[in-house]
Amino acid sequence: MKSTDRKSPLPRSPRLWAVIMAGGRGERFWPVGRAARPKQFVDLFGGKPLIAHAVERLRGLVPPERVLVVTSRALAAATRRALPSLPPSQILGEPCARDTAAACATATAWVRARAGDDAVLAILTADHLVADAAGFRRVLADAAAFAARRPVMALVGIRPTRPATGYGYVELGAPCAGAGLPRGFRKAKRFVEKPNLGAAATYVASGRFVWNSGMFVWRAGTFLAALAAHAPALAAAAGRLGAAFETGRPAAAARALDREYAHLEKISVDYAVMEKADNLVAARGDFGWDDVGAWPSAGDHLPRDAAGNAVSGRVETLAAKGCVIVNAQPGHLLAVMGAENLVAVHAADATLVCTREAAAGLKELVKKIAAASDGARYV
Amino acid sequence: MKSTDRKSPLPRSPRLWAVIMAGGRGERFWPVGRAARPKQFVDLFGGKPLIAHAVERLRGLVPPERVLVVTSRALAAATRRALPSLPPSQILGEPCARDTAAACATATAWVRARAGDDAVLAILTADHLVADAAGFRRVLADAAAFAARRPVMALVGIRPTRPATGYGYVELGAPCAGAGLPRGFRKAKRFVEKPNLGAAATYVASGRFVWNSGMFVWRAGTFLAALAAHAPALAAAAGRLGAAFETGRPAAAARALDREYAHLEKISVDYAVMEKADNLVAARGDFGWDDVGAWPSAGDHLPRDAAGNAVSGRVETLAAKGCVIVNAQPGHLLAVMGAENLVAVHAADATLVCTREAAAGLKELVKKIAAASDGARYV
Repeated sequence: MKSTDRKSPLPRSPRLWAVIMAGGRGERFWPVGRAARPKQFVDLFGGKPLIAHAVERLRGLVPPERVLVVTSRALAAATRRALPSLPPSQILGEPCARDTAAACATATAWVRARAGDDAVLAILTADHLVADAAGFRRVLADAAAFAARRPVMALVGIRPTRPATGYGYVELGAPCAGAGLPRGFRKAKRFVEKPNLGAAATYVASGRFVWNSGMFVWRAGTFLAALAAHAPALAAAAGRLGAAFETGRPAAAARALDREYAHLEKISVDYAVMEKADNLVAARGDFGWDDVGAWPSAGDHLPRDAAGNAVSGRVETLAAKGCVIVNAQPGHLLAVMGAENLVAVHAADATLVCTREAAAGLKELVKKIAAASDGARYV
Repeated sequence: MKSTDRKSPLPRSPRLWAVIMAGGRGERFWPVGRAARPKQFVDLFGGKPLIAHAVERLRGLVPPERVLVVTSRALAAATRRALPSLPPSQILGEPCARDTAAACATATAWVRARAGDDAVLAILTADHLVADAAGFRRVLADAAAFAARRPVMALVGIRPTRPATGYGYVELGAPCAGAGLPRGFRKAKRFVEKPNLGAAATYVASGRFVWNSGMFVWRAGTFLAALAAHAPALAAAAGRLGAAFETGRPAAAARALDREYAHLEKISVDYAVMEKADNLVAARGDFGWDDVGAWPSAGDHLPRDAAGNAVSGRVETLAAKGCVIVNAQPGHLLAVMGAENLVAVHAADATLVCTREAAAGLKELVKKIAAASDGARYV
């Protein structure tokens, strides 16, 4: 089912909460992205940072007062600046990075402390692109309706459009049918993380797989029960965090976060819970999603010149083809001549030139730069 | 004869004057070179601009008080700043560009006004590299000795090291022998401008050709006589300019330059005089000369990293090979990853990325940039 095909109004939603996961690192978009300005703060697309798009595309579905952003403590201030429409208390800074299982547990405990076990929440990403925001909201509303009525965790799957090897795939099982349930959901049978190209092609051709977007919808009680079953230490920590959140005192919450995070296992929610749970369902979303994993895919969302170069900022080209050329420094000129399939990205204090193929290895380059004696200033 | 093989002291020289031609345009080294900062002001090699090297390599042969720099009036102030050791009156600014015949005529008239018909002068370039300055001085001293004794114009030819198609070639004839004449000079028989690759290879293999370096040595009277024979209008203008120079009044000189240059033919000294003259001799210099015509050849004079990348300034590479990477902005980082045979050059307000092959077309790119509405600031 293509969600964009459905022109019906949003179904009567429960009071959905949105949790935007905005930990993020900067190296895949270096030199525009930095440790202190990771991908969600990059504003290549449409004049505002990706995280602002993430909040805005919820308009009409989740009002700002029900949005929680989970980020690192180091990025909390920058996140507040990027999201002036959100009350600062709804930006939660993790004291250290403990991957998505901890973030989901903390966020769910936070929402539960305000709205109880039956609160439905959508776990969303801060740094992805969504072309069809209305279609995206329809899938979330459907998933929320499902999660409100059944004790399931609903994965926002994405209909794959190419045999990508960098994504996780989820195999779909039988359709979920039932009185009052939205259509288009299926049982999630199996997770496959980053398959090889042959396997990926088979998955895409079969029509039985979706990409794992990393976005989920669940009732607080449902997720915490799954956590208790599959990750009991994390569930216990979530319980203690929830008690601190219920006090309503920011200092108590911060102390509890400090105390608990130091001991939490660093593990993704996929590994810790989803791959073990039997109550996972998945939608097959089709709303122009892209996780914009690296510069070449960012290029897919930039304007093209006649020679197929994706360009942003003050750029001049001559006989260049298929390049991604991003100039993030106003007043500077970035010129590319005679090159094909190159990535050239200029920021105020650093410039990157690489082939499209090499762009996937940007993390290694950034690591090398960071290791130089003057490296800290550039990463 | 390899001039570097000769370990004898410099022959007793006439009081040689040096004329450094420093008109120059910036586009072949954009974005480091600019209209207002052409190649001779670029300081990629050894921490000082090429024009300063051009004066310094004369040390021991021509003292600063006998050096004249001919540049454009627009560049005169910058030239004076780049050459603080020269009296400002020895920087002569042409009111408009009239190619090398006019510059040679003016310079020769200027020297003659100070030192008479028998003054020997070397016409030199401002923006070439010379690896072996002592060998270079030996060739100049020999040529000066020759030109002082015989009414010849001595071309500083260069022993070709590869079948370059971008240079002019000069075919050599019989050796010049005579009492008191330096060895190693031959009659110059024929000029060939920019041959095709096959012809160039034949020339190099024959051993009978040298590259035309654009550098000459002559007595003032010899050159002015050749000018009178082959370019009489220019010779007449040189006579009037000489009269103005003889007054010793800068204002009179400037007025004469304004008056004469407006009407001078725009032609190279090769076409106007050398190709027609029968008193041209040539040395076969071998002192590590390079005209550094474009970024790839500049790379030949920069330090190499282990992967054969020529680098200058704060640069980081990963899996890059055979690139020329020049970062002219202190504090900025230029990183190249996965690319081969690329040129990446960063200056404070503009950055160039191109293939080695495309670098020869830089003039066209600069023209395109200049034509943009904000182009003037970048060229």
